[in-house]
Amino acid sequence: MGKEFVVTPWDVSGNVDYNKLIKEFGLRELKGLPKVFQENVLFRRKIIFAHRDFERIVEAIEKKKKFAMLTGLMPTGKFHIGHMILAQQIIFYQKLGADIYVAVADLESYNTRGQSLEEGRKIAVEEYIKNYITLGLKPEKCEIYFQSDRSRDGEKSGAYYRLANLFGRHATFNEFKAVYGDITPGKMVSAFLQATDIMHPGLKEFSGRVPIVVPVGVDQDPHLRLIRDMTNRLKEPDLILPSSTYHYFIQGLKGGKMSSSDPTSFIALTDSAKEVETKIKKYAFSGGKDTVEEHRAKGGNPDIDVSFQYLRFFFEQDDKKLAQIEEDYRSGKLLTGELKKITIEKINAFLKEHQARRAKIIEKDIEKFLY
Amino acid sequence: MGKEFVVTPWDVSGNVDYNKLIKEFGLRELKGLPKVFQENVLFRRKIIFAHRDFERIVEAIEKKKKFAMLTGLMPTGKFHIGHMILAQQIIFYQKLGADIYVAVADLESYNTRGQSLEEGRKIAVEEYIKNYITLGLKPEKCEIYFQSDRSRDGEKSGAYYRLANLFGRHATFNEFKAVYGDITPGKMVSAFLQATDIMHPGLKEFSGRVPIVVPVGVDQDPHLRLIRDMTNRLKEPDLILPSSTYHYFIQGLKGGKMSSSDPTSFIALTDSAKEVETKIKKYAFSGGKDTVEEHRAKGGNPDIDVSFQYLRFFFEQDDKKLAQIEEDYRSGKLLTGELKKITIEKINAFLKEHQARRAKIIEKDIEKFLY
Repeated sequence: MGKEFVVTPWDVSGNVDYNKLIKEFGLRELKGLPKVFQENVLFRRKIIFAHRDFERIVEAIEKKKKFAMLTGLMPTGKFHIGHMILAQQIIFYQKLGADIYVAVADLESYNTRGQSLEEGRKIAVEEYIKNYITLGLKPEKCEIYFQSDRSRDGEKSGAYYRLANLFGRHATFNEFKAVYGDITPGKMVSAFLQATDIMHPGLKEFSGRVPIVVPVGVDQDPHLRLIRDMTNRLKEPDLILPSSTYHYFIQGLKGGKMSSSDPTSFIALTDSAKEVETKIKKYAFSGGKDTVEEHRAKGGNPDIDVSFQYLRFFFEQDDKKLAQIEEDYRSGKLLTGELKKITIEKINAFLKEHQARRAKIIEKDIEKFLY
Repeated sequence: MGKEFVVTPWDVSGNVDYNKLIKEFGLRELKGLPKVFQENVLFRRKIIFAHRDFERIVEAIEKKKKFAMLTGLMPTGKFHIGHMILAQQIIFYQKLGADIYVAVADLESYNTRGQSLEEGRKIAVEEYIKNYITLGLKPEKCEIYFQSDRSRDGEKSGAYYRLANLFGRHATFNEFKAVYGDITPGKMVSAFLQATDIMHPGLKEFSGRVPIVVPVGVDQDPHLRLIRDMTNRLKEPDLILPSSTYHYFIQGLKGGKMSSSDPTSFIALTDSAKEVETKIKKYAFSGGKDTVEEHRAKGGNPDIDVSFQYLRFFFEQDDKKLAQIEEDYRSGKLLTGELKKITIEKINAFLKEHQARRAKIIEKDIEKFLY
């Protein structure tokens, strides 16, 4: 607590005080949700902890009205467990009846990371879409699209890109700088596309005037504030301000952010059992004490232990078992090596089944998602 | 001569030395053209005086190969004689066999002038398209399109907007500032769209890898230089750098630029005979002397006389008659009032016929141009 921390779209450091963030960003705590949300580990364990305007989504779910969910993916690097937090939410909202939109930010990766569209398409399919399908995403009421190629339907394509260009009038350079730190023409183009990705499901050519939920990490909230401001100025009657939810960061193995360029910072969904074992044993930041004696005496700290966090976020779905592990680790009964062993087993059991199912995906399965 | 002058996209003032401009901008004098160009007053009288890479167009015409012409229109204000210089070129290139593309810059007028797309569409049809048709534009091999709605064909629409977004990576803020004076997000969006309008006919979804000619006023060359730079960096193999031609400014009635917001600076193609008479008599800047006696003795200056320029650009197609008027005015034989009378008669004869034909245009004629 009390310790200084930084949360901006381009830097997250220090010990984040999430309650303070709620106040600073003007978010609201997520509570009093319908029972169905208890089925999802991320909501049940308050890993998704705050929101803006989420009551519209709750109302749509309760009254069985139409709503949409939008998220994006940056088609670079490997699909790793850091990406699972959004994937799990996509699939959960699909089960709740949402129209699902997934934007492949290939123009953003071209404009801000110098990656070709061809490479972006390959990574999107191999790393992201195949894993989404394996995790349970269905093609019904689901559009995965590339920013560079929104639709083969000219009306839809026109509506999407028209919106992107209309946003040009409704922001200033200073607003961009506040969100992006520094700004280039390529980043600005990407910002207008991001706003369009989030808002366009509301256009009549898509889901129409419906509430849209956008799940994000809390560091991304400045983007959403800018998009809300631009949308307010645009005065397009079909666009309702987006609802958003905010989840905790998933720490990289060594603490800090996961980085695509550093494979020892994450576990990829294509990692082998041996790789997982090595990565957890060697790199996973531990909340344990320096010696067995000290650990037995004073206990470990699961709140900062990366292995425990991975169990909590994804791999131990049973609340009772998780609570037992937490209690045992905190008391010192469970040693770090033992906790890591549990984590390795859990991850590898998951990956074994996941990889077997992923291997069976064929071209035709993928095509169902891309017009 | 020697006098200072300024030519930038946002300011033209002083006595422009066109030879100096050719050197400064790195243009080439337009000469040695095939005979067919002599049929066009603007080429024959060297009102179109310079070019970049025009040999590609000459070659296409001589070898009867495919080529394209692109121009744009800003859908604000009235269609006036200042707009005729481009309209005449569109129609001339169409007769020469070009694929014609006319971009209605409705997103630019939205982003930089705060005009609604609906208003832009109305003005484009009523003021521009109806006058183009009256002046002789045919719907065959001609696409007039709105930036906000490029095509109902999703492949074409996608290709156009993809190109606009890819340009984002290939320019810097400083380059924009050099061309636009000051820059806003809305102007930047418009700049990428302008580059796309000019370059996209070369994409395989449109005319394909063909030379494209873009006729412009010489003050617009900085835009073309920026577009050439961005295109070079883009490395899209189907895009050939555009050919461009440069024409003189058409002075407003009182000298200086024509301004849509000042009806006494131009003659609109919807003006009545009485309005034309009043405007020419009252406002047209004269190259005559202060008194009849002085004029008879020293002669007038047709080079700065606005009425004479209008005859030269548009309304006196007969070279011999024009030369006679010029000689008589320069010698003092023809008085300013008499020159103005000739001009009024010529313009009104033209407008009478033009307006009668324009009145007959029906919805169906317009639809042929807009998918």
